[in-house]
Amino acid sequence: MTVRYFDHAAATPLDADVLAAMQPYFSEQFYNPSATYTAGQSARKSLEAARTQVAAVLAARASEIIFTAGGTEANNLAIHGIMQRFPEGNIVVSSIEHDSVLAPAHHYDCREVAVMADGRIDLEDLKAKIDDNTVLVSIMYANNEVGTLQPLRDVGQLIQGLRKGRARPLYFHTDACQAANYLDLQASRLGVDLMTLNGGKIYGPKQSGVLFVRGGLVLEPLILGGGQERGLRSGTENVAGAVGFAAALTKTHSLRREEAQRLEGLQEQFVDLLTEKIPQAVLNGSRKSRLANNVHITLPGFDNERLLIQLDEAGFLAAAGSACSASNEEPSHVLRAMGLSDQAAQASLRFTMGRATTEEQVRQVVDTLSSLVAQ
Amino acid sequence: MTVRYFDHAAATPLDADVLAAMQPYFSEQFYNPSATYTAGQSARKSLEAARTQVAAVLAARASEIIFTAGGTEANNLAIHGIMQRFPEGNIVVSSIEHDSVLAPAHHYDCREVAVMADGRIDLEDLKAKIDDNTVLVSIMYANNEVGTLQPLRDVGQLIQGLRKGRARPLYFHTDACQAANYLDLQASRLGVDLMTLNGGKIYGPKQSGVLFVRGGLVLEPLILGGGQERGLRSGTENVAGAVGFAAALTKTHSLRREEAQRLEGLQEQFVDLLTEKIPQAVLNGSRKSRLANNVHITLPGFDNERLLIQLDEAGFLAAAGSACSASNEEPSHVLRAMGLSDQAAQASLRFTMGRATTEEQVRQVVDTLSSLVAQ
Repeated sequence: MTVRYFDHAAATPLDADVLAAMQPYFSEQFYNPSATYTAGQSARKSLEAARTQVAAVLAARASEIIFTAGGTEANNLAIHGIMQRFPEGNIVVSSIEHDSVLAPAHHYDCREVAVMADGRIDLEDLKAKIDDNTVLVSIMYANNEVGTLQPLRDVGQLIQGLRKGRARPLYFHTDACQAANYLDLQASRLGVDLMTLNGGKIYGPKQSGVLFVRGGLVLEPLILGGGQERGLRSGTENVAGAVGFAAALTKTHSLRREEAQRLEGLQEQFVDLLTEKIPQAVLNGSRKSRLANNVHITLPGFDNERLLIQLDEAGFLAAAGSACSASNEEPSHVLRAMGLSDQAAQASLRFTMGRATTEEQVRQVVDTLSSLVAQ
Repeated sequence: MTVRYFDHAAATPLDADVLAAMQPYFSEQFYNPSATYTAGQSARKSLEAARTQVAAVLAARASEIIFTAGGTEANNLAIHGIMQRFPEGNIVVSSIEHDSVLAPAHHYDCREVAVMADGRIDLEDLKAKIDDNTVLVSIMYANNEVGTLQPLRDVGQLIQGLRKGRARPLYFHTDACQAANYLDLQASRLGVDLMTLNGGKIYGPKQSGVLFVRGGLVLEPLILGGGQERGLRSGTENVAGAVGFAAALTKTHSLRREEAQRLEGLQEQFVDLLTEKIPQAVLNGSRKSRLANNVHITLPGFDNERLLIQLDEAGFLAAAGSACSASNEEPSHVLRAMGLSDQAAQASLRFTMGRATTEEQVRQVVDTLSSLVAQ
C-alpha cells in the first residue's frame, strides 16, 4: 500500500543528499575532532565548515552556533542556560510552547502569555507579563500543532524597547524547529538572542540540533565534560550529525521560497476541498499567519483516535497533535489555550505536508476523510 | 600513505554491519516512534528491540536501559540525576574519572578518592571517604588514559556492605565507556546501580549512548520535554542511533573474548618490543589490571607533542592523553593523580589498539618511535 505521509511536523525522512554528505564521516573520517593529528584536525575542519554553513543561513557568526543533540536539548540549554545564571529572575513564555520549553521554564518563576483564538500571542498580555525581574522571553516561531506563526519581529521590537534603562538583562529565545523549512531565519532581523533548530524536522538526522547564541551572551552549560562546543555541550562531537544538519539546513533554505509557495497552494486546495466535502470541518489556528504545510481541523462529534486508525488503514499517516505527547492521554495544552473544549480537542486532526506531498495526495486524503465522516 | 590508527580510545570507526543495521531508519523507517499509526509503532518496536538487545548484554531488563546522546550525557544524567534528588548529600569519585564525571560531580559536595601509582583506586581511602551523607559513588571501570581497570566488584561489595542500617541510600555508578569492548558488562555481577556506555567507543554511532539505571531507581531528568525514555531523556528518539548502538554493543560483546585475547598478545608484543628497542620507555598504569588495547608510556626527556607530530607524519595516529582535553594545555589530571610529574606527563604517549591493529603495525610503530627517539 502506498503511504501518504501527512505528519511532517513529527518527523521528516533523511534527505538522500544529506545522507550522502554524512556518509564519509561514519567510517573513513570518523576521527575525534579533538585529536591533534592531521586526520583529527581534518574532522575538526569539517565540523567548523558545517558550523559556518549553518551560520550563513542565520546571517550569524560561526561562533554563535552551538551543535546540540536535538531541538529538545537546545531548548533546555537555552532556558536553563539563562535561568541558572539569574535564578532570582523570571521567564515569560507563551502558553502554547512545546513541552521542551514549558517543562524547563516551569523549574523557575514562569509566567505564561495568553494566546488568542487563532493561536497568536496577545502582545498586550506579553507586555504586561514582562516585569523588572524578567530575564528571558521564549516565544516559538511557529506552533507545532496548529501551525500558527507568532509575530517574532514585533516581539523582538517590544523587548528591544523594554531593555532601555533596565537593571537586569532581558533575552529573547525562539523555538524555530517547525519554522525552519519555510521562514526567514536571520537572527538579527528577527531580533532574537537565542534560537533553536532541529535536524529531525528539516530532512536532516534525528537528534541533531543547533542553538544559536548571540555573540557575547553567556550561558550556563547543561552537559559538562570535555568542554566541546565552547563548553556548552560537552561530548565527542557528532561530526556526521553536524555535517548532516548543515547540509539539511542549507538545502531546506535553498528550497524554502519555492516549497512555501507550493505548499501554500496545496494548503489552499486542502482547505477548499474540506469546505466543499466536509462542511462541518473547522479549521483551527490562523488562516493567514500559518505555516504553509499545516492543516489542523476539528470534526465536531468525531473521535480523532478512531479516525486516525481508519486513515492509517487507508494508508494516510496523520496525527492528533504533537507526537511528543501522543502517548499522553491529556488533551492538547495548545488547543486548550486557544479556547477549544476538551471535546473539540479530541475531535481534532493535524495534517502536515512536506516535500513528498502532491495535489493528488491532498485530494485523496480529503476524499478518504470525507467517506469516513459520511459513514 | 597507510594510516595506522593507535587512538581507539578517542574514537572508533563505525562498523560496516552497524551502519547497515542503521540504514533503514534514516529514510524508509524515519517515523516518529511516538506517532500512533502503524509505521510509527513499527519504529517504536525497532527502538524497543534495540533496548532489549542492549539489556541482554548487560543481563538487565529493557526498562533499565535509557538511550542518551552519548557517554558524556549519560555520565551527567547519572550524577545530576541522583545528586539533584539529594542535594544535601555528597558524592565520592576517583580522582582519575573522565571530565564528564568530575565536572558534574564538582557541582556538589564531592570527595575524590586517591589512586595508587598504577592508577588503581585505594580501597581504604574509598572506605574512608564514604560517610553517612554519601549518596553516590562513581568509579570508572577502565581509565581512558592509562587503561587501568578498577576493582569494580570489590567496590560493589564494599558499597553493599556499607548500605546496611543507613538512613540515606547509597548508589554506585560506573563509567564503562572504555571497558565495553573487552570486559564483562553484567550489571548485577558488577554490583552497579548505574552504568554509562558510549556508542562512539564501540564501533557504533557517535553521540549515541546508554545509561543503565537499575529498576526502581528514580533519577531527576536532565533534559525535559516530551517525556521520552521514561521521562529521563526527552527529545524525538534517534531510532537509527539506538539500533546502531545495539548492533555495535552486540557485535563487540560477541567479539570480546577473542579480541581481548588477541589484543593482549599485541600488547605484550608492544611492551616487549619497547623494552628491547627503547629501554628508557616507562610503562604507566598497571601491567596486570589493564585494558587489552592500551599501551601508555613515558619517554623521559622527550616532548610528546613533537613526537606525536613526527608519528603523524609517518602515518601513525596516537595521542598524548584524552582527546577530550587534548586542546587543553593543562597536564593530565590522571597522570598527576598517579604521581607523575608534569614533566613526565608531557613526555607521555598513549597508544590504543583496536580491531584493525595488527602485529605488523605494532612492530612498525615501535620501530618508528625508536628511530625518532634515537634521532
